[in-house]
Amino acid sequence: MCSCGLEEFVCSQTQETNKIPYDYLSHKEKYERAVENVAVVFKCIHKIYEEMDGSNDAYRDTIVRFLKRTPCNDGSPVAVHILMFLPAILGQASAEQRAQWLPRAINANIIGTFAQDAAAPKPRPARPIDKSRTGLRHAHLVLPFFLNLQTELGHGTFIRGLETTATYDSKTKEFILNTPTLTSSKWWPGGLGHTANYCVVVAQLYINAKHYGIHSFMLQLRDEETHIPLPGVEVGNIGAKFGLNSVDNGFLRLKNVRIPRTHMFMKYAKVLECKDMDSSLLVLEKLKTDPESISRPESEKELDQDPNGKWDWNRGPEVQILDFNTQQHKLLISIATYYAFNSLADELSKVHEEVTLDLQKGSLLRLPELHALACCLKAICSSDTAACVEQCRLACGGHGYMSSSNLPIIYGMATAACTYEGENTVLLLQTARFLVKTWQAAKNREVLMSTVSYFAMFFEFRESFCWENSMDGIMRGFEIVAASHIDKCVKNIEKRMKSGMPYEDAWNLTSIQLVAAAEYTTISKQDIELLNHRYEELLTKIRPNAVGLVDAFDFSDDVLNSTLGAYDGRVYERLMAEALKSPLNAEPVNRTFHTHLKPLMRGKL
Amino acid sequence: MCSCGLEEFVCSQTQETNKIPYDYLSHKEKYERAVENVAVVFKCIHKIYEEMDGSNDAYRDTIVRFLKRTPCNDGSPVAVHILMFLPAILGQASAEQRAQWLPRAINANIIGTFAQDAAAPKPRPARPIDKSRTGLRHAHLVLPFFLNLQTELGHGTFIRGLETTATYDSKTKEFILNTPTLTSSKWWPGGLGHTANYCVVVAQLYINAKHYGIHSFMLQLRDEETHIPLPGVEVGNIGAKFGLNSVDNGFLRLKNVRIPRTHMFMKYAKVLECKDMDSSLLVLEKLKTDPESISRPESEKELDQDPNGKWDWNRGPEVQILDFNTQQHKLLISIATYYAFNSLADELSKVHEEVTLDLQKGSLLRLPELHALACCLKAICSSDTAACVEQCRLACGGHGYMSSSNLPIIYGMATAACTYEGENTVLLLQTARFLVKTWQAAKNREVLMSTVSYFAMFFEFRESFCWENSMDGIMRGFEIVAASHIDKCVKNIEKRMKSGMPYEDAWNLTSIQLVAAAEYTTISKQDIELLNHRYEELLTKIRPNAVGLVDAFDFSDDVLNSTLGAYDGRVYERLMAEALKSPLNAEPVNRTFHTHLKPLMRGKL
Repeated sequence: MCSCGLEEFVCSQTQETNKIPYDYLSHKEKYERAVENVAVVFKCIHKIYEEMDGSNDAYRDTIVRFLKRTPCNDGSPVAVHILMFLPAILGQASAEQRAQWLPRAINANIIGTFAQDAAAPKPRPARPIDKSRTGLRHAHLVLPFFLNLQTELGHGTFIRGLETTATYDSKTKEFILNTPTLTSSKWWPGGLGHTANYCVVVAQLYINAKHYGIHSFMLQLRDEETHIPLPGVEVGNIGAKFGLNSVDNGFLRLKNVRIPRTHMFMKYAKVLECKDMDSSLLVLEKLKTDPESISRPESEKELDQDPNGKWDWNRGPEVQILDFNTQQHKLLISIATYYAFNSLADELSKVHEEVTLDLQKGSLLRLPELHALACCLKAICSSDTAACVEQCRLACGGHGYMSSSNLPIIYGMATAACTYEGENTVLLLQTARFLVKTWQAAKNREVLMSTVSYFAMFFEFRESFCWENSMDGIMRGFEIVAASHIDKCVKNIEKRMKSGMPYEDAWNLTSIQLVAAAEYTTISKQDIELLNHRYEELLTKIRPNAVGLVDAFDFSDDVLNSTLGAYDGRVYERLMAEALKSPLNAEPVNRTFHTHLKPLMRGKL
Repeated sequence: MCSCGLEEFVCSQTQETNKIPYDYLSHKEKYERAVENVAVVFKCIHKIYEEMDGSNDAYRDTIVRFLKRTPCNDGSPVAVHILMFLPAILGQASAEQRAQWLPRAINANIIGTFAQDAAAPKPRPARPIDKSRTGLRHAHLVLPFFLNLQTELGHGTFIRGLETTATYDSKTKEFILNTPTLTSSKWWPGGLGHTANYCVVVAQLYINAKHYGIHSFMLQLRDEETHIPLPGVEVGNIGAKFGLNSVDNGFLRLKNVRIPRTHMFMKYAKVLECKDMDSSLLVLEKLKTDPESISRPESEKELDQDPNGKWDWNRGPEVQILDFNTQQHKLLISIATYYAFNSLADELSKVHEEVTLDLQKGSLLRLPELHALACCLKAICSSDTAACVEQCRLACGGHGYMSSSNLPIIYGMATAACTYEGENTVLLLQTARFLVKTWQAAKNREVLMSTVSYFAMFFEFRESFCWENSMDGIMRGFEIVAASHIDKCVKNIEKRMKSGMPYEDAWNLTSIQLVAAAEYTTISKQDIELLNHRYEELLTKIRPNAVGLVDAFDFSDDVLNSTLGAYDGRVYERLMAEALKSPLNAEPVNRTFHTHLKPLMRGKL
């Protein structure tokens, strides 16, 4: 290794002059570009660790320095190998298994990925191993964060629903691995698509037709020489995503794939042969202080809860995730917003027509009002829309991150509107100016324009205002709060000007409050409590009509263009079908295996 | 036209069987796919308008139906032609100009784009024109929203700073158009990159060295036969974006490009020849009731404000946009968050080490605390980080939407973390369970773990708590508010269970509040007021150190990989350099001109 600094080292490894910038590449080309950098990633990790002093923070520092210095701009196909596959071997493999797998994994002779789930045994703090060999001594420090890795197409946070099976065949002393259904296809592991040739698979274990819970198995995916998937192994890329397109997140389907008995991870449990009974036996060797056994039951209670007796993933499309209160909170707000914005658009059109008529009669009176209204509604509608789209996308979990959900593209369009045709903050300040000006008129008891006529009420009824839990009361409440906001801003500006500050400076210092004033969004604390209660009850009432309210938007499947939002609800079939259309999946082995991965695996770093 | 319904018509036009899905394409291929659909877009608009009843809502309905039915999933290269170029001709051109340009634009014989800005004269409500010919009778209804279109690389909402010049040459009766600086390059207009052959350009008008303000001009960009840019016209694509990659947003640089006098938009102002003086004269014909002349000064006041006497775009990189209070509010929060999360990570590592030591001694006591802490921090850190990234991206205006800013890719990575390794809402509910459980212990005056020891304080000092505007006071305030939240949730659950509801249902109905409890984010109203005031003053104090605090993150330019965040601050040079690397810009005319645009322009719809 040269004696130059880390920056220079990384720089010298990653000169990309004359290459087309990443953002212009196709999905397939982005992956290929990332594989070209895989050797650099390994070198950087080794180099950085060399420079560490072996202190307690070594692992975290390595990761931080790695992220600060290494060109993994959009993720890396070997991130899961480094961050999860290696720690899995460290934490779950028996001593013999570790001796067999670890050196090969550390030296990148094999590249792995990791299809674990929350229910599966977690890596435990491992005994420190030889620092100079691995750089992974403190790998366990990062583990508390790996809690709920999604693995199967139809199974995210719900753990016991995992469908992949490992059936022990005592005659051949092998496990037979199967993903018996579409929904049991492994889905998401980074590097699984075309990079990894080994994988940790989590499956339901059966011995003599008896269920023994969930265990981890080391599975070879691809031939080490040709990289061709082994018989019974169907593996590929899950498709374009919102981001992280350097990572070939993959799917995996298994059909009667046999692995030796010794490929079950055996640190905490193993299957032993019992000769006298001609049968097998699962031996569990649990640590007395097993952190997972304490924290996991909590987690399962949470995840398995069945609010209305309907929660059963195995029933497939009938699952009503909307019965969770937190999901209702996320989704019904968006539906309500759609209807509200439609009404607002009608209202604005009406005002626009009225003002146009006024203009033809020579009256300019309501023009500032129209301007303020249009500015405010453009800003609010665009930013709320973007927030709602993102909320809905996140509510879809990992599937919402897939480009084929179309939610990333919809977000890209929605958030653009926050900037074009008038940046939202600038527009809100325009409205704020109108409000401050009109406030003076209201103080002077002048006649006010219709959309701000509630200012008058503030001056008349402010003292006697009493919250009322009705639609009218809610409206009145919003008006009072909005008016109070403006009142406060105006007083603030006046105060600052009295202390000698110029108007524009006072305005600038008050502008955050002013933006809030234009947003109309706050209300007093006890009022919110009452509203909250009412809101929770409304969610339950609206719930049965949620689907109908959305169908009424009347968007066709062709225009929605989403694997998740199609009328027939065949989500999983569509997700898989779109994945299979990826040009990366047109060939079993990507060209970069021969140019970059194979040399790396043969030790030619 | 066939008599089938609109859905079937659109469907028949857009069958894309066997095509590679859009998301897998490169930036260049996405544009080419979009151009293949341009003819369909024109047909749909015509078809939809045919079906309208000519009512007042016709235009809005057309747009809504268009968006609901037409496959413009990621935008269209002719959207600006339809939504802005045509209305500009309708609203700003003289009768003779309209007669000359409108039919050609409507029939797509020419395709235009629009480089207007807020300062330029806006289209006014036009007299209804023959419905059967155009479908644009109500085009003006949409115009109030087109307020601040960004046009030049260095000039967004600041209007008077536009640098493009139109100098009248009275000898040849021509205008000479120039973009004299890099920052005056036109930047953003949709369709400008490779689709449009005409463009409305907004420029500072000079006659005999005298400045006459900002006016619009019709400029031919490309040869109608070959589509090659005309002499002096440098035009191209601005590069990959966060979204809307079907739209070829473009840049335009002009060097002594001459256009005839009659190509200035002459509805409201024209340059006349004054033969007796051998000079020229600008004649302004302002409508008495000109809506823009009333609303625009407001807008300019807003946009031109100079908070500290430093606001001068023309000084280039010295502009300190951070002197705006609203920008400080957006950006300084992110900087503070970075430092806070670093401390949190240290703290969590410490707790993790302590708990690991406890485990080795056989004590499991603090394990649930660590689990709750890790769940909460994973959720809060990932969602706050995503929100901060998006906040910063939006604060960069249009430039933050460019892929070359790297902010879209950073957001893609940040938001992924909200879903992977445990969906955030699920994790927050895990923390909530811990909090509710610990609450019972606190009520029973049991000894509490360190991170929740403040619960005890709530039971002891709740009544006597008094807000104090100090760091300690703020901490105390947060603790009281957090504790009150949990108190309310627990009471809520108990109340619901008393009324006969099972625990899990009561939990589900309370879960929105529970998520909020886990977030620790609220505080009482009057306390917020005091904090707000302090906060505004702190912004001003931190302002001088903002750059230093960010430099201390110590990310190298190579890793940041951003046109906007580079150390030398040469933003505009980098933006243009990255744009020029687009494969679309490698050839002056894209192949789709010959296969799709030219046939369309020759009337072969």
